[in-house]
Amino acid sequence: MDPRVREHAEIIADHSTGIEAGENVVISMPREAEALAVALHEIVGDRGANPIYLNNSERASRAFMRARADDESDGGEFETPAHQLALYEESDVVVVARGGANVSEQSDVAPETTAAYRRAMQPVLKERLSKRWCLTQFPTSGHAQLAGMSTEAYENFVWDAVTLDWDAQRDHQAAMVELLDDADEVRIRSGEGTDVTMSVAGNTTLNDYGEKNLPGGEVFTAPVRDSVEGEVHFDMPLYRQGREIEGVRVRFEDGRVESYSAERNEAVLDGVFDTDEGARYLGELGIGMNRNIDQFTYNMLFDEKMGDTVHMAVGAAYEECVGDENEANESAEHVDMIVDMSEDSIIEVDGEVVQRNGTFVFEDGFE
Amino acid sequence: MDPRVREHAEIIADHSTGIEAGENVVISMPREAEALAVALHEIVGDRGANPIYLNNSERASRAFMRARADDESDGGEFETPAHQLALYEESDVVVVARGGANVSEQSDVAPETTAAYRRAMQPVLKERLSKRWCLTQFPTSGHAQLAGMSTEAYENFVWDAVTLDWDAQRDHQAAMVELLDDADEVRIRSGEGTDVTMSVAGNTTLNDYGEKNLPGGEVFTAPVRDSVEGEVHFDMPLYRQGREIEGVRVRFEDGRVESYSAERNEAVLDGVFDTDEGARYLGELGIGMNRNIDQFTYNMLFDEKMGDTVHMAVGAAYEECVGDENEANESAEHVDMIVDMSEDSIIEVDGEVVQRNGTFVFEDGFE
Repeated sequence: MDPRVREHAEIIADHSTGIEAGENVVISMPREAEALAVALHEIVGDRGANPIYLNNSERASRAFMRARADDESDGGEFETPAHQLALYEESDVVVVARGGANVSEQSDVAPETTAAYRRAMQPVLKERLSKRWCLTQFPTSGHAQLAGMSTEAYENFVWDAVTLDWDAQRDHQAAMVELLDDADEVRIRSGEGTDVTMSVAGNTTLNDYGEKNLPGGEVFTAPVRDSVEGEVHFDMPLYRQGREIEGVRVRFEDGRVESYSAERNEAVLDGVFDTDEGARYLGELGIGMNRNIDQFTYNMLFDEKMGDTVHMAVGAAYEECVGDENEANESAEHVDMIVDMSEDSIIEVDGEVVQRNGTFVFEDGFE
Repeated sequence: MDPRVREHAEIIADHSTGIEAGENVVISMPREAEALAVALHEIVGDRGANPIYLNNSERASRAFMRARADDESDGGEFETPAHQLALYEESDVVVVARGGANVSEQSDVAPETTAAYRRAMQPVLKERLSKRWCLTQFPTSGHAQLAGMSTEAYENFVWDAVTLDWDAQRDHQAAMVELLDDADEVRIRSGEGTDVTMSVAGNTTLNDYGEKNLPGGEVFTAPVRDSVEGEVHFDMPLYRQGREIEGVRVRFEDGRVESYSAERNEAVLDGVFDTDEGARYLGELGIGMNRNIDQFTYNMLFDEKMGDTVHMAVGAAYEECVGDENEANESAEHVDMIVDMSEDSIIEVDGEVVQRNGTFVFEDGFE
């Protein structure tokens, strides 16, 4: 076994979730990630905890969802599965890895079928999220292909990002948390297309250093819902429903998306913004700070943590980020989009420049 | 997908378990059997039932068991996993397929570790067995190798056995069920090494035609616990924990195993018989009647159904076989062992010969 698989498993068990004796652990991974699951079983045994091993196969769930959707007897409705719910209710820790063989495996499931399935699974998801959980990535050929990388180069990329010194990363990110946590106004400028201001007053900034997401490497908060003004050119692509959306431009007025365009696959954006009213407001402002993630791989788990980027998500805000006096933006959507901040870019907090061309005020080389 | 995979899945869903709308189904298969799991997910969706997909990886459970056994802090004890128990409590149907890549995967797990693990898992197993369940086989290279067959020949062997005309097989076997169901004493003699008698009075003989076991092809009952007397030479090998056990000889007194030996890997038997007191008593007498299973493949799911064989299992009795006035043998073990009845062999029921050298009294050629 590649020693980095074992290291990956140790970080999940110790740093991300803190598995302890007597705890019930769900290990949910595609077949391609079996090596990581095996390493986790060894650690779970060593810690005196109890595993169950789920195969989160996209081929299997595709087959199930399509068959369900084709059932004319009941209009293809989905039920909340009571056995899955019971499993998670009795669990303490949930570890989920992505890494199927083919990232397009569910490209022929109708979006409304996926949506109906997600609604039925909502109580299961809520139960899962109420536990200590970690979402991570196993480096497979399918995801390497998506990134346009060889499998070996992609393995190096994933494991470099995952096996960061997370204590050092936490401390590094804490400086940015401190700046944002006391802030009122944030202004982000980049190139010709991005100049946006928003208030984060009263909201909390969280430090993501590889716990619920592995890799971690961002700090994030919620904008005050109606405060966002200006325009953003999301110059990094995003991948959604098997389609690549490029060159998204959005104009905000009083917090709301008043106009938008995309250079490619704009129709997918129509679906996002028309989901509900909350999908027209920002739910998250995040700042990518993981410099081991040094290239874009069409995988939001990594892309949103890239150094020298910021991301904003339209849709639902994280409740932990929203202060008592502010309103949390609610939506069925949460779509992250990314701005490259490496050149001709500035982040200002209350009128003071805190990042210029990707270099933070608390780093060497800041001018 | 090989059309026989879909046919296999349909037999499981319709003939073996009868999956219906609204039922909660557990699909537990190794990664190598993903095609069968995918086909089952499609059928489960079609029937309006709800799946959960477990990966019953022997690599993962090996890693877990070994790590647990090495833990000095608590002597390597195992706990009953509450989350697994909760899952099965809320389930209606459980489908388990064997078919790992390497049948020797757990050959370096100490037998006492496996025994301790099984004891802890006993409540989970009991819960599983209280549901409608099916144990089947996916034809993989590892099992083909174990059988000394090419993968393609083994695929043909497995799918020929699985896709039998189960209605015709049921009728054929019913004649033997009738003979045993009213019987008091059964005596089995074979060669020099086997002469054993046991009572089956008050117990029920079941007709296995591909429901709980797929393939099926046996009739089986429970001996009255304390009635077994004599010796048995199990002259067909068995494969357990990745080890081949050959030439097992067992002597019963008042139902209990008073002595035993094996020509090879006797230590594995020690682990079996020392699991608990119930492991020293017979839980099952079975008669193999599936003549489509025409070769020994070191796989009990098939071997015990071979024509011209009987098998006896030490350990747990099937409760459905045990009459109200008899005691069901309880154990964490259930280990089948086989006697070749094709030559110099006789089965007697209440003093009457019902099978001689493999031919039943109700078949052509019986003398």
